[in-house]
Amino acid sequence: MTGGERYVAGVDLGGTKIRTALAGAGGQVLAETEVPTEAAGGVRHVVERVLYTLELVQREAGVERRQLAALGVGVPGPLDPASGVVYTAPNLGWQDVPVRTILEEKTGIPVYLENDADLAALGEYAWGAGRGAENMVYVTVSTGIGGGLILNGRLYRGSFGGAGEIGHTVVLPDGPPCRCGKRGCTEALASGTAIARRAVELVEGGFGRGILAAAGGRVEGITAAAVAAAAAAGDGEALFLMKEAARYLGVALANVIVLLSPSLVVLGGGVMQAGEFFYEEICRQVRRGVIGPAARARVVPAATGGRAGVLGAVYLALTAENECINRRRK
Amino acid sequence: MTGGERYVAGVDLGGTKIRTALAGAGGQVLAETEVPTEAAGGVRHVVERVLYTLELVQREAGVERRQLAALGVGVPGPLDPASGVVYTAPNLGWQDVPVRTILEEKTGIPVYLENDADLAALGEYAWGAGRGAENMVYVTVSTGIGGGLILNGRLYRGSFGGAGEIGHTVVLPDGPPCRCGKRGCTEALASGTAIARRAVELVEGGFGRGILAAAGGRVEGITAAAVAAAAAAGDGEALFLMKEAARYLGVALANVIVLLSPSLVVLGGGVMQAGEFFYEEICRQVRRGVIGPAARARVVPAATGGRAGVLGAVYLALTAENECINRRRK
Repeated sequence: MTGGERYVAGVDLGGTKIRTALAGAGGQVLAETEVPTEAAGGVRHVVERVLYTLELVQREAGVERRQLAALGVGVPGPLDPASGVVYTAPNLGWQDVPVRTILEEKTGIPVYLENDADLAALGEYAWGAGRGAENMVYVTVSTGIGGGLILNGRLYRGSFGGAGEIGHTVVLPDGPPCRCGKRGCTEALASGTAIARRAVELVEGGFGRGILAAAGGRVEGITAAAVAAAAAAGDGEALFLMKEAARYLGVALANVIVLLSPSLVVLGGGVMQAGEFFYEEICRQVRRGVIGPAARARVVPAATGGRAGVLGAVYLALTAENECINRRRK
Repeated sequence: MTGGERYVAGVDLGGTKIRTALAGAGGQVLAETEVPTEAAGGVRHVVERVLYTLELVQREAGVERRQLAALGVGVPGPLDPASGVVYTAPNLGWQDVPVRTILEEKTGIPVYLENDADLAALGEYAWGAGRGAENMVYVTVSTGIGGGLILNGRLYRGSFGGAGEIGHTVVLPDGPPCRCGKRGCTEALASGTAIARRAVELVEGGFGRGILAAAGGRVEGITAAAVAAAAAAGDGEALFLMKEAARYLGVALANVIVLLSPSLVVLGGGVMQAGEFFYEEICRQVRRGVIGPAARARVVPAATGGRAGVLGAVYLALTAENECINRRRK
């Protein structure tokens, strides 16, 4: 790229919203927007929505279409970065969608595709809590639990893609069923969905009055956020559920630390907003589980919040554009 | 190095024996020897033993001392490859031993130090089952359970060293105590020591007659090898214990595969000699635990047997010598 005349865009394509940013060649974000995904409209419609956000950020930044050099896109599901095909993205209702080809035809510029958790890892690495980390594990605790690995200063994809799936490491054999088909996955024990499910079970068993109150008195209103709110207000049962989730998260994180000896673990995602007590409990559990030299790894909260994904998409577009021959070869 | 005139040596310094090999610049092993470590004699004595093996292989290969360009050494414990200090090696009775400095003073050549499991991973990668693998996980199931990671074609050490410690990933919270101080580590459930311990408990409870017979009728004779022999002969209780160990190994291996999406997992160590049924059971458990694109990883037995460590030490010396400036910088 040549100086300030060329730009890149990043798109975080989620199941409920599309977040898009336009940045200069140095990575500075000049415009950013967010629109509902309207995934039910199908692939064509979602692609039109993405193109619409690109127009919005270009207009806002006063950048012409021909000045856009590359596009990075994060998609919630396993995909092949080389071919640009999304194998499956349940939250979008996608199956084997060649989204890179589609977007390249529509935009006329190179499009780089990556898993959303991997891009969030890149975003935190480039402009968040992971700046300067040589080896970083990013974990997002949300509806599900995802992760991405930065090893030796680069996104690590593994041989077949899909690396970093800490949510589907098993920490309790014969534990509760996970949506992936296994049992006792970290996601089945510590995700927002898991916390809410445990709370519903409690309430349906005649307990959890504080949780029910925090959920507006309706069982259907019980979410991880409601449980977290009750816990933060001192409700014993809610605290128990949150600490139980923190414990399994701690086991999973300690396992990753023992395996990878990273300098840093960065924790993001909505459930991490539960409060200081939750973060502290996770750290306490991690400390119990790490041994040897790897115990020096630090665990810190994410710094870019909900923007990690879109920032990672920008970073992907910037770096991929600079080494596009390598990436295309792959 | 310059052609066939210079040589390297590799030393696998174990708690019970020292295995040393001398190789040409192309990696071809010209001489190899093994002597008891006599660890009880202390650091000085063990160093003398190492020097003695070097003399043996030099003599056998007809190589002069001045032709030896570098020495790779594997030590059973966490260490700092940069400073060359072994933090702790319980099997040698060592604590904070600057073994690199000692050996460099004695030999006058560069010495490169690495954890023994990491070197075994390198050995399998260079000349064993892992040839050509881009991302490989090596696991040794023996008295303990160790591991090493080859990521993007290079030994991955992590930020603080000690990466690859799959034996101390927890697969059963609140499980049996591990020698590391935690509970439910893979090593506490599936190592040779763990299998023997479970068998002793069974026999002391009045069960396990087939196992006791395989151990020569003496409780003190019960080892993982005895349990494996009884299992191979069709003893139901022994089979149960071996399959239980295989199950936890399978959970741990699947967790690593889900995290790292390697192309290959290589299984070595004495317990893997238990027989085809044990290996098959591990593979069955791994298949149950892998999901997504990472499920394409293959699991294979090690190919260099007990020589993985010494071959890795040779490989370390060869490659480190070729890029010694980089390594020294680290």
